[in-house]
Amino acid sequence: MRKIYFLSDHSGVTAETFGHSLITQFNNKDFRQETLPFINTKDKAKDVVSKINQDFDESAMRPIIFATLVRKDLRLLLRTSHGLYLDIFDVFLKSVEKELQQESAQKVGRSHGMSDIESYMNRIEATNFALTNDDGGFNQNYDEADVILIGVSRTGKTPTCLYLALQYGIYAANFPLTDEELDQGMLPKFLKEQKKKIFGLTIEPKRLRQIRKKRRELGKYSTTQQVRYELREAEKLFKRYSIPYIDTTVISIEEISSRILDQRGIERKL
Amino acid sequence: MRKIYFLSDHSGVTAETFGHSLITQFNNKDFRQETLPFINTKDKAKDVVSKINQDFDESAMRPIIFATLVRKDLRLLLRTSHGLYLDIFDVFLKSVEKELQQESAQKVGRSHGMSDIESYMNRIEATNFALTNDDGGFNQNYDEADVILIGVSRTGKTPTCLYLALQYGIYAANFPLTDEELDQGMLPKFLKEQKKKIFGLTIEPKRLRQIRKKRRELGKYSTTQQVRYELREAEKLFKRYSIPYIDTTVISIEEISSRILDQRGIERKL
Repeated sequence: MRKIYFLSDHSGVTAETFGHSLITQFNNKDFRQETLPFINTKDKAKDVVSKINQDFDESAMRPIIFATLVRKDLRLLLRTSHGLYLDIFDVFLKSVEKELQQESAQKVGRSHGMSDIESYMNRIEATNFALTNDDGGFNQNYDEADVILIGVSRTGKTPTCLYLALQYGIYAANFPLTDEELDQGMLPKFLKEQKKKIFGLTIEPKRLRQIRKKRRELGKYSTTQQVRYELREAEKLFKRYSIPYIDTTVISIEEISSRILDQRGIERKL
Repeated sequence: MRKIYFLSDHSGVTAETFGHSLITQFNNKDFRQETLPFINTKDKAKDVVSKINQDFDESAMRPIIFATLVRKDLRLLLRTSHGLYLDIFDVFLKSVEKELQQESAQKVGRSHGMSDIESYMNRIEATNFALTNDDGGFNQNYDEADVILIGVSRTGKTPTCLYLALQYGIYAANFPLTDEELDQGMLPKFLKEQKKKIFGLTIEPKRLRQIRKKRRELGKYSTTQQVRYELREAEKLFKRYSIPYIDTTVISIEEISSRILDQRGIERKL
């Protein structure tokens, strides 16, 4: 099995994102992946080099290393291992320095560090908003919302709202469509008033059944008939009110979130 | 103001992460940032080129473009703009292809696409776990937890648990330390039994006051005396039980999460 490393002088989030974008382009499932974050001294870097070389010796397969190290001296050290060393900073930092006619700070922890209390608070407040306005919520302070997701149970509303809050600082509420709305084919008044903020989520019946059965094996909730009914009526409702919606069956939370921002023209706040 | 673009044929998450890691190395706040996701046809790519060129004409400053486009024909098109075009795939894809002796799939949406229902469900279940085990929760099914965060109110427990769930599929519970635990200097029995999973969060008194005052302007909750008392007793408690802990004052949710996984040796599940 080929070893894949994600190396970073900080949290490792960028190195993982960078590496995943490349390795997922290969239909190879035989990767052993490991993240080594907080490599911020020469000693730690040397230990990592030994570890990589040991891997190489044992497997006779060259490890692939996705790295984001800000400090040049550490990059040069890590580059001496027997792995294939690919580093964002190695390749792009010079171009950006040249373009901006400015030297880079070479300070770790900037990208996912705490830039300022303002954006930290944004993120926390957006998360609180998502939590208090989850699943219909108590307050329904939808005036403050940037977006309100609607859909039947288990279409991905909650994780999408939380992701929008944590990743982008967006105030996202969600409201579940239940038999009440579906039978009447109508949205409640307080939602109709916010029509421009509403976005619908739907999913294929087969997948929804699969997801619901994991939660509640028996009962009407996960029968084919109920699931089909709910989704059909929800989609009718989206169309009646001209609410944009997407099918979440084969797309990830990142993609749902990004599409919502894109289609509703909502600006990122972080 | 210099324009910064994040271009992608998919959600744009990788392009944003990539670009932020570089531009945060410059002490320049005068950037106008824009993400253009889902550039997946030649026509869309041509429109983007026009938009970039218009920016260049208007500001006489060359836009910097961080891009992650899987399709080579689209990269070649985007490269014709007057901006500085920096693309992860342009630079690294060949090296990885050569190393793996395999051609890349050139399929969009792999990195943040839905790879399989298994990992989707992991993520959703981890998010549900975080929600039901937030703030002491009802169930306290800590046997299932990968990690249990403890700390006084507003030290970042909830957003960190949610981030751990969404980003890594980790089951993270959290338990607030209140006057009950702090006065007695003891953890409840059900927590002592899970000592190996516990991780503490603390923060500087000044910052905690600042955060608490945003939530509740008046009352004991955000007085200097109360905040100092709680934090002092919480840290004593961490030390008494040898619980690892970190100060979250100047670090981000990403970094807190990564340090927890690192120090507790918890494997990422996504």
